[in-house]
Amino acid sequence: MLGVIGGMGPAATADFFAKLIEETPAAGDQEHIPTLIVSDPRLPSRTAAILDGGPSPLPSLLAIRDKLLAAGATLLAMPCNTAHYWYEELARGCPAPFISIVEASCDAVRRIAPPGSSVGLIGTRATLAAGIFEQRLRAAGYAALLPSEEQLAGRILPSIRLVKEGRPARAGETLAPAVRALLDRGAAAIILACTETPVALDAVASSLRERCVDSNRALAQSCVARWRAR
Amino acid sequence: MLGVIGGMGPAATADFFAKLIEETPAAGDQEHIPTLIVSDPRLPSRTAAILDGGPSPLPSLLAIRDKLLAAGATLLAMPCNTAHYWYEELARGCPAPFISIVEASCDAVRRIAPPGSSVGLIGTRATLAAGIFEQRLRAAGYAALLPSEEQLAGRILPSIRLVKEGRPARAGETLAPAVRALLDRGAAAIILACTETPVALDAVASSLRERCVDSNRALAQSCVARWRAR
Repeated sequence: MLGVIGGMGPAATADFFAKLIEETPAAGDQEHIPTLIVSDPRLPSRTAAILDGGPSPLPSLLAIRDKLLAAGATLLAMPCNTAHYWYEELARGCPAPFISIVEASCDAVRRIAPPGSSVGLIGTRATLAAGIFEQRLRAAGYAALLPSEEQLAGRILPSIRLVKEGRPARAGETLAPAVRALLDRGAAAIILACTETPVALDAVASSLRERCVDSNRALAQSCVARWRAR
Repeated sequence: MLGVIGGMGPAATADFFAKLIEETPAAGDQEHIPTLIVSDPRLPSRTAAILDGGPSPLPSLLAIRDKLLAAGATLLAMPCNTAHYWYEELARGCPAPFISIVEASCDAVRRIAPPGSSVGLIGTRATLAAGIFEQRLRAAGYAALLPSEEQLAGRILPSIRLVKEGRPARAGETLAPAVRALLDRGAAAIILACTETPVALDAVASSLRERCVDSNRALAQSCVARWRAR
């Protein structure tokens, strides 16, 4: 079974689960991937741990990982960009393959932008501050482009809030200029490393979407490919 | 934790999970309900078991129930109308409360139609043939109205297929006359006892929707109420 460490937040987990089903080429229900999801929103805040030195969620994440393994998971995924700050500790010594959302997103970038080009990042302050994507992008031959503080505080974070408040079209209008600014600065592709942002751009049917990788969908695609190849 | 017996099919489970999150009055991620989902599409077909005497999924459903209980579930739900054919066997002797989608739907009907009135049923052939809703509706003081064979074969089942094929607007146009026919025959409310049918009516923004209960959303509402009252 595919084991999913979720709940950070629950909407991102539900979004991943829906995309996993969409991305599975199944003629009938029975061809879908058996999936075990622990969605536990009681975990210590990832943002507070990264930005303010709050309590680490790592012990809880390890406990969920082990619970999934004990219940029969043979492949693992964690549909939360920020939580990948602790990915190395979670994957180390893990007896089942653990698909990284960062690795999956880099694979998706390769399909739309050649190595040597720049890749823009859209995400929460914690995801960007933690440098979760930069190192892996560099290793894959890409340069990472971060949004300006003005775009982050004035456009990206407000657009995420608007999606959470159920106003996706307004969120899309707010976000689009921040994506355009990264493309204007030379990005050949953009990673939407936050579940709310693809929802925002889709709501305004933005043509910018073609240059963007939805990290949660990339993770779903990698899980399906890995499951089918097992 | 809320334990979810799912995978029948997986899209219905994902639909329930998204509605559970929507229906939870949470100011932040951490107020959401800790949830454990087993989505196992390898179960014997419920339809084949009910209509053609195929192998029963009950042993597998009991095994999933017990796996959820062992992993810490203190409340159970199963977002599949057809699988409620085995509800009594699953709830009997279960050490945690098991919320029924049938009971939850009857509660939602009470909010829009007075006892003594008729309630129309929209669902798959197996759900309707098994009489899963009739008995409970009768006990709650309602008369059940089933669609004609012509409406079932010519409109309801094709609309379900259209949603599965990703054509919700066409599905809505196909389904609407079947809902209207039940209302014309005197139904004061309709239970949409099949995950695809609310998607179809929503896609055409049908005004018929006001008279309809989405059984999966009703189950989510009952789970939230029960969780908060614990």
